[in-house]
Amino acid sequence: MIGGKTKLFGLVGHPVAHVRTPQAMNALFEQNGLDAVMVPFDVPPADLSGALGGLLRIGNFEGAVVTVPHKMAVLELCRDLTPRARLAGAVNVLRRVGEDAFAGDILDGEGFVAGLTTAGHSVAGRRICIVGAGGAASAIAVALAEREPARLTLINRSRERLLALHERLASRFGELDVGIGEDVGGHDLVVNATSLGLRADDPLPFDPERVGPGVLVAEVIMTPEITPILHAATGRGAAIHPGRAMLDGQLEAIFRYFSADGRIGRRQA
Amino acid sequence: MIGGKTKLFGLVGHPVAHVRTPQAMNALFEQNGLDAVMVPFDVPPADLSGALGGLLRIGNFEGAVVTVPHKMAVLELCRDLTPRARLAGAVNVLRRVGEDAFAGDILDGEGFVAGLTTAGHSVAGRRICIVGAGGAASAIAVALAEREPARLTLINRSRERLLALHERLASRFGELDVGIGEDVGGHDLVVNATSLGLRADDPLPFDPERVGPGVLVAEVIMTPEITPILHAATGRGAAIHPGRAMLDGQLEAIFRYFSADGRIGRRQA
Repeated sequence: MIGGKTKLFGLVGHPVAHVRTPQAMNALFEQNGLDAVMVPFDVPPADLSGALGGLLRIGNFEGAVVTVPHKMAVLELCRDLTPRARLAGAVNVLRRVGEDAFAGDILDGEGFVAGLTTAGHSVAGRRICIVGAGGAASAIAVALAEREPARLTLINRSRERLLALHERLASRFGELDVGIGEDVGGHDLVVNATSLGLRADDPLPFDPERVGPGVLVAEVIMTPEITPILHAATGRGAAIHPGRAMLDGQLEAIFRYFSADGRIGRRQA
Repeated sequence: MIGGKTKLFGLVGHPVAHVRTPQAMNALFEQNGLDAVMVPFDVPPADLSGALGGLLRIGNFEGAVVTVPHKMAVLELCRDLTPRARLAGAVNVLRRVGEDAFAGDILDGEGFVAGLTTAGHSVAGRRICIVGAGGAASAIAVALAEREPARLTLINRSRERLLALHERLASRFGELDVGIGEDVGGHDLVVNATSLGLRADDPLPFDPERVGPGVLVAEVIMTPEITPILHAATGRGAAIHPGRAMLDGQLEAIFRYFSADGRIGRRQA
């Protein structure tokens, strides 16, 4: 029940019609008896700074989950960043710091690894290919790099982001075999960390003919649950890991991030 | 259930802890199967323009109910105004017009009269005293003036607002006896349309010794339900009319204002 003392959280993205995070967070707020609500904020890229600046002027606005396409752009709008957010170059959760600033962190990488672990998949010693170099891809790359894979290959259409991510990973994980590639073939785990598949007319993020039995194809997109590339991968005999697992793997961490310091009051009986 | 297609409405005030409008509007949205939610926005006066400007950058933000202390200030931020909002010099509902503007209307006056009517109280031919000259007071004064009272007396601490309201009413309702006074005595209906009574340490809005049997004392404050002036008026033998009636009397009108043009979609099953 929303009332006058309810704290406000947002899910900031564009588009937002497909999101599942508000539903999941509102269930957690309710289960824990906290007087807070998360609502979707559909914010086009050009309006990100204006929207977040305005939200800071609302006293009971406490924070937000940030999703496609804002995870990298929102980094510039945070005053305080965690080391992993700096390394990933991206933020997917932010919370108010005082009257006029945000702190940011990225939980996507840990969420993705937690989702893999829950599903019984391991990372250490495996040959991993990440398609994409945006916010989620960067966070996932960092989290996977910390788990000692045999090899990490990065693929992305935009060369600039790809080289920037490669440089950050190579300098931080000196002993890891991090490469830039063009072919998803020859890997044990292939992650679609692009937003391709979110819209019905998107092209496939990579050629599904290059995966098959023994390969796990993982996704970060949550809606549809079975994206076209997951569907194609199944047809090739590959195992699949839907994107919802990355959200499920970080829900508790998002909840703790938002409810820290007792900033949310108890729900009235 | 809040989802990615939910339209967003706000209750903009300061403070907001006491508000009841989000609860009532969310019940109406649900009863009518519309996919929308109203949340409280606690916005200090200095931040009103910044907050509303930021909210316009959020694509699914559709409008707001505006309450104390913003009803007069928000007028300047609306591109389109109804004649009654111009006359009252105040706005209590606004909705998005295109990408970067608001339209505003004031429903407090009609809501107040509807609340009186529902409770069996008439306006025509009665001697009425309105204490206050802010947004709600102005709207109520206009709506009451249209119902042919015997006399309308205006009382307010700030002389400037009082004279401005008196001038607007006198020029619009030339045949009505509209006066400026200092004593609530000698009236059939006395309306507290100030915000005094909202905070526990507020002084009384007028001297309760000047009302008694045969007088109806009406309130616009909703929390507490029985404000100190209503309590004192009851002690003097006067009848009372709590502030909640003004909200109840305009809930349907607010709902129609927000859901016009089919701008809110149906809730998913």
